[in-house]
Amino acid sequence: MAHAAEAGTSTTPSAAIGSAEFDRDTAVTLREPGVYDAELSPGWTIINAVNGGYLLAILGRALADALPHPHPFTISAHYLSASQPGPAVVRTETVRTGRTLSTGSAALLQRDADGHEVERIRVLASYGDLSTLPDDVRTTARPVQLPPPDQCFGPQDAPEQTPIPGSSAFTERLWLKMDPATLGWALGAPSGKGEIRSWFGLADGRDHDPFSLLLAVDALPPTAFELGLKGWVPTVELTVHIRALPAPGPLRVAITTRNLAGGFLEEDAEVWDSADRLVAQSRQLARAKLN
Amino acid sequence: MAHAAEAGTSTTPSAAIGSAEFDRDTAVTLREPGVYDAELSPGWTIINAVNGGYLLAILGRALADALPHPHPFTISAHYLSASQPGPAVVRTETVRTGRTLSTGSAALLQRDADGHEVERIRVLASYGDLSTLPDDVRTTARPVQLPPPDQCFGPQDAPEQTPIPGSSAFTERLWLKMDPATLGWALGAPSGKGEIRSWFGLADGRDHDPFSLLLAVDALPPTAFELGLKGWVPTVELTVHIRALPAPGPLRVAITTRNLAGGFLEEDAEVWDSADRLVAQSRQLARAKLN
Repeated sequence: MAHAAEAGTSTTPSAAIGSAEFDRDTAVTLREPGVYDAELSPGWTIINAVNGGYLLAILGRALADALPHPHPFTISAHYLSASQPGPAVVRTETVRTGRTLSTGSAALLQRDADGHEVERIRVLASYGDLSTLPDDVRTTARPVQLPPPDQCFGPQDAPEQTPIPGSSAFTERLWLKMDPATLGWALGAPSGKGEIRSWFGLADGRDHDPFSLLLAVDALPPTAFELGLKGWVPTVELTVHIRALPAPGPLRVAITTRNLAGGFLEEDAEVWDSADRLVAQSRQLARAKLN
Repeated sequence: MAHAAEAGTSTTPSAAIGSAEFDRDTAVTLREPGVYDAELSPGWTIINAVNGGYLLAILGRALADALPHPHPFTISAHYLSASQPGPAVVRTETVRTGRTLSTGSAALLQRDADGHEVERIRVLASYGDLSTLPDDVRTTARPVQLPPPDQCFGPQDAPEQTPIPGSSAFTERLWLKMDPATLGWALGAPSGKGEIRSWFGLADGRDHDPFSLLLAVDALPPTAFELGLKGWVPTVELTVHIRALPAPGPLRVAITTRNLAGGFLEEDAEVWDSADRLVAQSRQLARAKLN
């Protein structure tokens, strides 16, 4: 599949921010003040789980509507139970509104087989307007170093398609090109280093905004794979800082784990845009099944 | 002032965990189910602000009482308005209880001059029991490297005591010995590196528990000082992961800022115990006054 950004072409009208598949699948509809209906698309499912970054983008859009500021500056999500494709409701609470920052809470809920509402995710976030921030940057952070995309590998490049249980719909919606130096796990030789680096985009070439950055931080294979773990690594909590509006073009993402202890690990992500700006930082606490 | 841990002596009975000043000053009293009274002590004030880590410890203790699990595994706080010494109330909500983890929310409120409740801090946290975790550790993280305490410097070692406006009560309750390599800012020559490393303890020699770790991550001078900024750096949001029960003895803390952009910066902390275990990791988003 040709990636629009890689090919240097402009995005197609159907992949413009606001009207692309990601926008349709994260849309929320106001039901009553502070309460939104959403439909969790099966298109963002991997194995049997709806991706946590996709879910966070839905919550993030509900809060963007409920609060007077448009962009999440810092958003923390605690994952309580496994979301399922299908209807969901987001209930928001405005905690505080200020001139430059507003704070809100949101819960994503679904009905169980008996019709009872079950909470899936609780979020606490502070919002502002990234377009109003000064350009001043003082950073010692260096952009993620990656070989060019044509020397990197994605799920579509696997030498033989090993069928995975459940769905691989999620990877079909992404443009992932991972640094081969961080892909030892895929060949049965994990590096033990706990780092994965990748080019990241949406398969339809949609450019990025703060909400697709929430997806970008949680879209790569778990760092735990490079640590030699094989099992599922469910997120307990994920906090994302959005630091700047991303420039058009592909992103570079690095995720890193330093400490796996007592059955838990942290996974840090940093996301750089095509203008070499650090546009998002995140950290999650996840459970590891030790083997 | 001799530090009990430094001198290798055991702590005095008055500085035992549970009965020391830190425990008294972070105590919460159940008023009704889920609601706790607290008294914000002026002893944890620096300049005119009550320290954010001290406040987080109060919220953390209220949630430890309200939830079925004793220890914060991951706790996120959004700071909404400036707390004042004096009475406060903590209102908790149990979001979900599970076998190994429980999630709760908490708000710290104080009354303004008109008697209206004003929210100071909102917290979202997942709790577990650190004493039940397996000992398994796989880490690439290395303990914070520091000269011995007698070659490090604290507020008491300043060559001339420059009076600071407001209170310096906070620093009197701490045993801080900072690596001179990270103290350029105090001599008017900030390194530009955005890192400060320090020994950390409580002045009365109280050993550490998960709640004093919440203090440890937010107790050093701002990294922004080493970046050459001079003004106040108020915390917007602080997330702390407690990864293990700390061993007795002094802690080592490193705080690092990589990216200052658009008037905001992140500050990462890691805390190591005397047994060379990474016991806490944190990240905060703070506002910087650019100068």
